Amino acid sequence: MKSSPEQIRDFLTTNGDLLVVIHFSPDGDAVGSLLAFGAMLDQLGVGYVLAVDDIVPERYSFLPGFEKIRNLSELPLNKVFDRVVVLDAGALPRIGSAQACIGKKTKILNIDHHFTGPYYGSINHVNVKACATAEILFDLCIQLELEINQQIAYGLYVGILTDTGRFSFSNTGPRALEICADLIRRGVDPSRITDNVYHNQSFESVKALSSALSTLELHKDGLICLLSLDRDHDTNDTEGFVEHALSIKGVVLAAFLREMHEELYKVSLRSRCQVDVSEVAAKFGGGGHLKAAGFRFTGMKNDLVDGLIEEFERQLELHNIHTGNGSDDQ
Amino acid sequence: MKSSPEQIRDFLTTNGDLLVVIHFSPDGDAVGSLLAFGAMLDQLGVGYVLAVDDIVPERYSFLPGFEKIRNLSELPLNKVFDRVVVLDAGALPRIGSAQACIGKKTKILNIDHHFTGPYYGSINHVNVKACATAEILFDLCIQLELEINQQIAYGLYVGILTDTGRFSFSNTGPRALEICADLIRRGVDPSRITDNVYHNQSFESVKALSSALSTLELHKDGLICLLSLDRDHDTNDTEGFVEHALSIKGVVLAAFLREMHEELYKVSLRSRCQVDVSEVAAKFGGGGHLKAAGFRFTGMKNDLVDGLIEEFERQLELHNIHTGNGSDDQ
Repeated sequence: MKSSPEQIRDFLTTNGDLLVVIHFSPDGDAVGSLLAFGAMLDQLGVGYVLAVDDIVPERYSFLPGFEKIRNLSELPLNKVFDRVVVLDAGALPRIGSAQACIGKKTKILNIDHHFTGPYYGSINHVNVKACATAEILFDLCIQLELEINQQIAYGLYVGILTDTGRFSFSNTGPRALEICADLIRRGVDPSRITDNVYHNQSFESVKALSSALSTLELHKDGLICLLSLDRDHDTNDTEGFVEHALSIKGVVLAAFLREMHEELYKVSLRSRCQVDVSEVAAKFGGGGHLKAAGFRFTGMKNDLVDGLIEEFERQLELHNIHTGNGSDDQ
Repeated sequence: MKSSPEQIRDFLTTNGDLLVVIHFSPDGDAVGSLLAFGAMLDQLGVGYVLAVDDIVPERYSFLPGFEKIRNLSELPLNKVFDRVVVLDAGALPRIGSAQACIGKKTKILNIDHHFTGPYYGSINHVNVKACATAEILFDLCIQLELEINQQIAYGLYVGILTDTGRFSFSNTGPRALEICADLIRRGVDPSRITDNVYHNQSFESVKALSSALSTLELHKDGLICLLSLDRDHDTNDTEGFVEHALSIKGVVLAAFLREMHEELYKVSLRSRCQVDVSEVAAKFGGGGHLKAAGFRFTGMKNDLVDGLIEEFERQLELHNIHTGNGSDDQ
């Protein structure tokens, strides 16, 4: 569902307060798109607040404009806005406490690439074929004849890079690479971005990875791989740990169990087969996407592991996936 | 130094036996370029042998045409060829035993992107600005009006992907991405390539990584990071282990020490600062590139570690690199 660039320009340049917000647990596409959008509004001469109900991971702090992002979990706005632009959020609850900034008369512009339920915007500019919200904003810049300056270029490159998993997920089409080539021509340094986003881990995080990898367990003839980390480790930065399990030959379902407190676990699930891990997560009260999902679990680790493996095995049976055929659809 | 496409076509379509060879310890660019070149010769109607004096890593075995590569370390050719095409090798000794296939009358076509010493070819088609030999071959396909079929497209994509470090090294220019976008349009599936090349590790290799990461040591205020693996581990696949050390915030020099036998170590060095690790490797009888080099060491591990840290520290002093300024040039 796409609206016209003129509709969007009219929305943005109308009088009244404007909030631009992204989903909590912000990823590279959300953060990059937020910063790019701010620079687009600068060019349109529109005042705005950029916000997210969360801490933004430090790995994105090198991005131009980063300091303009307001963390609503620390500094609420306590105000209803006339207009709210929601970027990269498939449903309104994903913006968390920023929902308090939306009143009965607030107009919403929804710009997104997620598979989504009911459209929640007054204007919905949604393209589920785009690899990232950043791709939609790139097109919008061209359509609105805005200059793709450094803040926009860096934000959009990070959005596409991270949402395509470094150009590795199945959404990596030629457009993703062509846009990034264009952004490099406009001055983006890809090695600077990769160094900041992917090669900037804490020593504690790498030690924790070592510890987590030492727990690797294969199940069901190597189709399932589990790893875990106990609460003694002094790091919150465990992003990507679960991917190591999935990078093992033959593994098609992976889970990472992070002990948060005694008898409280945060679980990340990944699939590289037909099994929809959001369904698995839903059985445990969580959710997510087909290939990546998660949930929180209160109870004993043994019960968690047993329940999870049982559900994984059930799904593999359902889809008739056995060793040797599981990763056919990669 | 570039020759004309016509010269190259003439060289290839002259009568006589033709060998196409790449450097030993073949990487993705060497293997991908070799396979692409074979498919180019098919279209030119020229017979050929594709060879390398080494085992080709299994991660490339999904590439179309892979089974045509002859391993000279297992099956020598014992024959002098009329013409030899050398791909991706900065110096002739890099082709190892294939040098025995070169006689006094043998004509050599050298196609490469490495910084190189004396040109060893009868024809030298060298472009040090290309990100990979695969980039040069892409251009050659266009110039010779050859069809970029699946074998060529997959080979070239793997070459560019691996030689740019998944589009992360400083050689990642817009051309690299544009060519890959073009190859996707011609049918390449980037997720299939990434899954095979990067997400296809053995369980033993991931366990070995865990063990190696548990040895991580920072030195010189966190500028230097060392990790090691003892010989008890049942894996040869330790590629990329040293990169984990370099991915730690603040680290600018890294070394991975792999115990091969008692008192024999294989050492990989990496830099992300002005220090040229090929100079460090040379002090220990090895060599390599500015940012990546290596050597073999016979002796006690303590002596190796002490000598290496001393040399690293000397280089950091020489370049006046201290904590906080070391990674400025990333």
